[in-house]
Amino acid sequence: MNYKIMAKIHAWILLIESAMMIPPLIISMCMHETKNVWGFTLTIIITFSLAAILSLISRDAKAKFYAKEGFVCVGMAWIVMCLLGALPFFFSGTIPHYADAFFETVSGFTTTGSTILTEVEHLGKGMLWWRSFSHWVGGMGVLVFFLAIIPVSGSGGFSLHILRAESTGPSVGKSTPKMRKTAAALYVIYIGLTLLDFIFLLIGKMNVFDAACIAFGTAGTGGFTVLNSGFATYTPFAINVTTVFMLLFGVNFSIYFMIFFKRVWSAIKNEELIYYVIIVVCSTAFFAVNIYQKTAQTMKLGETIMHSAFQVSALITTTGYATADFAQWPAFSQAVALVLMMIGACAGSTGGGIKIARVMLLFKSLKRNAHKLNKPNEIRVIKINKQKVSEQTVANVNAYLAAYVILIVISFLVVSLDKANYSVTSNLSGVISCFNNIGPALDELGPMSNFSGYSVLSKIVLSVDMLFGRLEIFPILMLLLPSTYKKT
Amino acid sequence: MNYKIMAKIHAWILLIESAMMIPPLIISMCMHETKNVWGFTLTIIITFSLAAILSLISRDAKAKFYAKEGFVCVGMAWIVMCLLGALPFFFSGTIPHYADAFFETVSGFTTTGSTILTEVEHLGKGMLWWRSFSHWVGGMGVLVFFLAIIPVSGSGGFSLHILRAESTGPSVGKSTPKMRKTAAALYVIYIGLTLLDFIFLLIGKMNVFDAACIAFGTAGTGGFTVLNSGFATYTPFAINVTTVFMLLFGVNFSIYFMIFFKRVWSAIKNEELIYYVIIVVCSTAFFAVNIYQKTAQTMKLGETIMHSAFQVSALITTTGYATADFAQWPAFSQAVALVLMMIGACAGSTGGGIKIARVMLLFKSLKRNAHKLNKPNEIRVIKINKQKVSEQTVANVNAYLAAYVILIVISFLVVSLDKANYSVTSNLSGVISCFNNIGPALDELGPMSNFSGYSVLSKIVLSVDMLFGRLEIFPILMLLLPSTYKKT
Repeated sequence: MNYKIMAKIHAWILLIESAMMIPPLIISMCMHETKNVWGFTLTIIITFSLAAILSLISRDAKAKFYAKEGFVCVGMAWIVMCLLGALPFFFSGTIPHYADAFFETVSGFTTTGSTILTEVEHLGKGMLWWRSFSHWVGGMGVLVFFLAIIPVSGSGGFSLHILRAESTGPSVGKSTPKMRKTAAALYVIYIGLTLLDFIFLLIGKMNVFDAACIAFGTAGTGGFTVLNSGFATYTPFAINVTTVFMLLFGVNFSIYFMIFFKRVWSAIKNEELIYYVIIVVCSTAFFAVNIYQKTAQTMKLGETIMHSAFQVSALITTTGYATADFAQWPAFSQAVALVLMMIGACAGSTGGGIKIARVMLLFKSLKRNAHKLNKPNEIRVIKINKQKVSEQTVANVNAYLAAYVILIVISFLVVSLDKANYSVTSNLSGVISCFNNIGPALDELGPMSNFSGYSVLSKIVLSVDMLFGRLEIFPILMLLLPSTYKKT
Repeated sequence: MNYKIMAKIHAWILLIESAMMIPPLIISMCMHETKNVWGFTLTIIITFSLAAILSLISRDAKAKFYAKEGFVCVGMAWIVMCLLGALPFFFSGTIPHYADAFFETVSGFTTTGSTILTEVEHLGKGMLWWRSFSHWVGGMGVLVFFLAIIPVSGSGGFSLHILRAESTGPSVGKSTPKMRKTAAALYVIYIGLTLLDFIFLLIGKMNVFDAACIAFGTAGTGGFTVLNSGFATYTPFAINVTTVFMLLFGVNFSIYFMIFFKRVWSAIKNEELIYYVIIVVCSTAFFAVNIYQKTAQTMKLGETIMHSAFQVSALITTTGYATADFAQWPAFSQAVALVLMMIGACAGSTGGGIKIARVMLLFKSLKRNAHKLNKPNEIRVIKINKQKVSEQTVANVNAYLAAYVILIVISFLVVSLDKANYSVTSNLSGVISCFNNIGPALDELGPMSNFSGYSVLSKIVLSVDMLFGRLEIFPILMLLLPSTYKKT
């Protein structure tokens, strides 16, 4: 393992993180939030000092870099970022226990949006900004950002490994040689869409601070809000704008590339996109009908459709915003909600979950396996977008699902040990919610509740689950394997 | 597709089934259960007539037989068996709705043990015998029985395909050329162990009828009982005997082959068996500690261990007997219970679930995949019992899990549509319980409750799930594929 290059990358990451804390520091100053000013200042000093030390140590680092280092580096960087990102909450005293602050920060960076806070307004504007901004950074990935802005010499392979480890979904497409340009283009699209969302929210007369934070949460498909009432008190216009933008951020960003390069037709014909649209439209219809049957007296049809579309978007993109307590819905809507949470958005988007591309491959490989029994000697390839998918990719997707199920089951068992003694539904949906980076869960962890009742152990397990989910298992799994650190 | 040979096999199966109904007919006569006598007589006439017709049609059948026919034949035979096996309940009027009778029969043959009956004693002895006996037949498989007793000319490949489709677990070992002898040996062991169980229950002063039915339910790892109180009123001796025998029937039957051929050492060193024992011992300890903490005032430690061991055995072998309402247990015990249900017993046993051999392969392949990221160029084989497992088997197990998850999710969605509007926990655990052939589920479908509240559609979906589970997905899946019936 090339530890020096890893130290060098971490130095950059910490430098970026300390820079990211300057805006919330300024906000805290303007709002006269003394405790928050203190929290951010102290954290910036610590983070910056660490960056300086790491930079000194790694002066003579060689740019030799393998896949292994790429994975480990991404996993480690995220953990370090969260450990330090939790300090402002802790130092300012707004979240008195460090484990809680860590949970909240992991939930932010991984764009989960689960919280241990019963009410958020007491945090102060500076802290609320930091909380929502972590969603925005985590959505596209901080290492991708690093790739976009920092020139690393001889870094072709390096960039590829980092991009692979931090971006989402099965790698169906080919890797381009110009990774830096790709990373930069991703961020340009990301910033552009976020700005657009922000402007629309302003047009709807939301105040600037709320609009910025909601845009961050929407872009990262995170789910943190800035009011104690969550999303419930915003206008229908804000709800509809957010519905549209959640869906836009759930799309594979390569689609935007295609549209930008005027390949609109292949963008529209993209199989994953088509399924995404179908799932969203059908689920919205299911929700609307199922909920309307129960609420026809109290809610108009138009309103029902609006809330249904909002909730479907919030669930499938794993943003987790809620205008209603879906734990109170009819059984079928709850079941659809659970399934949407697990499927998640498109690969290569900022959303979490298993990803539609993987689910498509699982279905296609199931169909192929059944067909194989009929004609054992016929060789059938699996195609997506009329292109052959390699057998390795198919095997990887099946293996991914296996890892996913195994890790969820283990986490579920550990969390069930908790003294809180929550129901099976709560524990299982809580783990699933964290693993898929959704936010709210069911029963005792529904959208109107929070994760504060769990013990420190459970909070750590759930934090690790959020990281597993965001980085798609293997970067974190490799960190935990002893063989990773053996010399070869 | 060779329809004639399939007709011929079905003729034999129906003949066997009508013969199996003679003992309960005699019991019904002795007990003067007029309705039951009528039900069995009518069904025997219909089944026998159908057998005769099929036999006439298929006189000139050729013994040409491919894997495809093997799978389709097994899937079809089980459905036909259940359709006809439900008739006595229906004709006698003891279960007035045919969908309910079908559900109950599928639950019997697939050794699930889920019921739609609120109380069972009103069925009468004849019907109770038939219900429990269906567990016994389903446990080892009726086509295996058919192989054991009927000489089919030129049937080497035929037997192999049938055995593969009807027996459980991934095919890790080699297939032996002497399939008929294997089938016969399997039944000899099966009958021997069942008799032993029966004798032990008699020694414990259980009455003959109950002992026979409980032995059938234990051998098939089914779970139907003959008293309204279920297992709660039996003596501690009967409970302990049943614990031991459930565990014995959860062992891969090839272990008994090995012991029979004096290869005791390789039997003991069998990896799956070792994990099975470890899981059982650890889970019992977990249960005992977790439940004892809550019940120390009302239950002695010895009693807690006895009930824990019984429940662990009932869950992991997917028998589903219950001495207590585990829906009332602490969260951790419930979580362990759910996981045990899904893991299931050993491959090649009468138990349901995913099977320990598959879970082992899933873990080993996960470990291998993580290792691959460290050393992408190193080729690692997966071993079980120090023997290499083929990559095809590993891929099949991953694909099996994918099919398993997909089918459970689809069933869960359909069942959630039910007007009964049960909770998410009930619907999901109900589907999982049926798919893994367990019997009781959680919440509104706990061991002290039943499935009668569901609509006909849900009952059919759950019945199909039970068949999916018992035949391990592909025989039933192929029946549903149009391409199976296309000429080539």
